[in-house]
Amino acid sequence: MSKNQQILLASRPTGPVTEANFQLVERDIPQAGPGQVLVRNHWLSLDPYMRGRMSASKSYAASVDIGEVMTGGTVGEVIESQNPKFQVGDFVVGSLGWQLYAASTGDGLAKVDPNLVPLSTYLGVVGMPGGTAWIGLLHHCEPKAGETVVVSAASGAVGAVVGQLAKMQGCRAVGIAGGKAKSEYVVKELGFDACIDYKAGHMYEDLKAACPDGIDCYFENVGGATMDTVFRLLNPFSRVALCGLISDYNLTDPYGVKMIRSLLVNRVKLQGFIVFDRQDLYQQAIPKLAKLVASGRLKYRESVAEGLQNAPTAFIGLLAGRNFGKQLVKLV
Amino acid sequence: MSKNQQILLASRPTGPVTEANFQLVERDIPQAGPGQVLVRNHWLSLDPYMRGRMSASKSYAASVDIGEVMTGGTVGEVIESQNPKFQVGDFVVGSLGWQLYAASTGDGLAKVDPNLVPLSTYLGVVGMPGGTAWIGLLHHCEPKAGETVVVSAASGAVGAVVGQLAKMQGCRAVGIAGGKAKSEYVVKELGFDACIDYKAGHMYEDLKAACPDGIDCYFENVGGATMDTVFRLLNPFSRVALCGLISDYNLTDPYGVKMIRSLLVNRVKLQGFIVFDRQDLYQQAIPKLAKLVASGRLKYRESVAEGLQNAPTAFIGLLAGRNFGKQLVKLV
Repeated sequence: MSKNQQILLASRPTGPVTEANFQLVERDIPQAGPGQVLVRNHWLSLDPYMRGRMSASKSYAASVDIGEVMTGGTVGEVIESQNPKFQVGDFVVGSLGWQLYAASTGDGLAKVDPNLVPLSTYLGVVGMPGGTAWIGLLHHCEPKAGETVVVSAASGAVGAVVGQLAKMQGCRAVGIAGGKAKSEYVVKELGFDACIDYKAGHMYEDLKAACPDGIDCYFENVGGATMDTVFRLLNPFSRVALCGLISDYNLTDPYGVKMIRSLLVNRVKLQGFIVFDRQDLYQQAIPKLAKLVASGRLKYRESVAEGLQNAPTAFIGLLAGRNFGKQLVKLV
Repeated sequence: MSKNQQILLASRPTGPVTEANFQLVERDIPQAGPGQVLVRNHWLSLDPYMRGRMSASKSYAASVDIGEVMTGGTVGEVIESQNPKFQVGDFVVGSLGWQLYAASTGDGLAKVDPNLVPLSTYLGVVGMPGGTAWIGLLHHCEPKAGETVVVSAASGAVGAVVGQLAKMQGCRAVGIAGGKAKSEYVVKELGFDACIDYKAGHMYEDLKAACPDGIDCYFENVGGATMDTVFRLLNPFSRVALCGLISDYNLTDPYGVKMIRSLLVNRVKLQGFIVFDRQDLYQQAIPKLAKLVASGRLKYRESVAEGLQNAPTAFIGLLAGRNFGKQLVKLV
C-alpha cells in the first residue's frame, strides 16, 4: 500500500453514533522526522471510552476536534526509526489513532514482545482493558475470598478479566451480559460461577438468585437500569468500581438512578476511576496479566473487524453490544 | 407528673408521614429493676434517620415495630439507680426513645456534664449530628486547605457543623439551604463563604457562581435534584460523603439521579456512611466539639418543640424543612 488511510471525526453525534460521524481519507504516508519513528499499525483497539472523545462536553480527556484523526490504541511495527530507543522491526503499543501509519516521537510507545503473547492482546487482556480490570477490581473493590463479585458487560474486554481475576481471589464471580450466547460463554469458557442475561427480562430476580449472599463488589461498565438493579442487592460495606456507563453514552437524556439510597443504607464506597491515573499500578499489572495469558490461566476472546474502513461500523456495534469479546480492527 | 407518656408507632407511612402514624399513650412510670437506672428525659432529639425506622424496608438499623415506642436520642437525669455506674443526679445521653421516663440497664448511656455545655447540645452539635459532621467531613471528604466544600441542609444540625469545620480547615464553605432566612443565617451567623437558597429556582447558576473553582468535597444530606446539581460541578478527584437523602425519604418513587457520569469522568469517591459505624472516631470527636462549643468557636441553633405531644408535628416539619437548626423536643 502506498498511501496512508485515516478515519477522521467528521461531525459530533447527538444521540447514537452513525457512520456519517466519520470520514475515511487517504494521505501520504508520513516520514520519521528527526527523533521520530514511523509505525505501521497492525491492530486498532475500539473501546467505549472513545464515545466520550467524540463529544464536545467535558470528560477526563480532551475531545477529538472535528477533522482530526480519531484517537485509539494501536499496536504495530516500527518501519523507520530516527529515535535511538527504537529499532526497525520493534513492535510497539501506544495510541496512534485510527490510521494505518503514524509518525511519533516515541513518547507513549512501549515495546512489546509478540512471542510472549499474541500481538493483539496488548490492546486487550494484556493492555488497557486488562489493566483497567486489574486496578478496578483489586485496588478499588478489594475483594476478599468468599465475597461475591458482580461485573456488567461480563463478556467484554474488561469484564471477562474482572471475573477471572475475582475467581483467582477466591470470590464468587457473577456476570451480567446481553444474550444467551455471551452468558453461556462467561460461565463455560471463562469460569464465572453464574452469568445473567439482562435481555431475558427479569434481571433482578435472576441476579438475586445468582447472588444468594448479596453483592460485595460491583464492577460497573454499563450503568442505567443495570446499575439500579445491582444497587438493590448490595451488601453492607460493599464497594463499587465505576469504570464505564456504556448504556448512557448514546443517550441525550441519561437514565436516572433511583437506588442511591442503597449506597447510604449499606455504607457503600463508590469510586469512579480511569486506568491512566494509576500508571504505577498499570505497570505492575501488565507483566502479570501477560504471564497469566501465556500460561493459559487467563482466557480472552476477540471480535475482529477486517480493514480500517470497517472501524466505524464495528465501533457502532460495540456501543450497541454487538461485539463478543474485545473489539479490534485488523489493519494488516 | 405521675404517669409516663410515650409516643408509639401506630402505622407505617406510605409516602409522607402524618400524625396518624403516631399514638400518644400514658403508662405507669417504670421502676429501676436490679442493675437498672430510671431516667427522666429532659430532651428528645428528632432526626431525619427516624423516617427509615418507620418503614419496614431494610435499613441500617431495625425498623420500629407497630405499637413500639419510637426510637430517638435523649438526654436526661438519673432519678433512680440500682446500677453502681450511675448515681441519682447524673445526666446521661442515650437512645431512650420518644417518652418521658425510661428504665435502662445503662448500656448505651453516657454521662455528660451539663456545666460544660448546655444539656441539649449533647443531642446536637456535641452529639450524634456533630459527630456525623466530623466523621463525614474530616474522615470521608478529607478536605485540604483552599478546597471548596459544599454541604446541603446547611442550616441543619449536621450541615451547620460541616461548614464551620470546613472553615477551620481553611476551606471555602458553601451551603445549600431552603429559604432566604436560613441562607442568610448560614453566611452571617455561621460564617460560611456563601449559601444558596435552593427555593430561589436557579440552583445550578447560583451554585456555580458560589463555587468559581468547582467543588472538591460534597457533604450530602438531601439527595434528589440537589445531588444532581452538585454533581454537575464536581472537580476531578472530588469526594462525596453521603450522609442523608432527606428529599427522598417521603417519596414512594425516588428521584432518579442523572449525573452519575460525573462520578466516572471526575473519578469521584462517594462514601455512604453512618456515624455509629465509627465509634472510635466518634469518641475522639465529641470532646473536641464540646471544647469548640464551650469556647464559642462553634455556633449552633435549635428549634424547640414544647412537650412530647408535639413531637409528631415537629418531626413532620423536620422532614419538610420547616425546622431551623437542630430540632429538639423539650420534655421538662
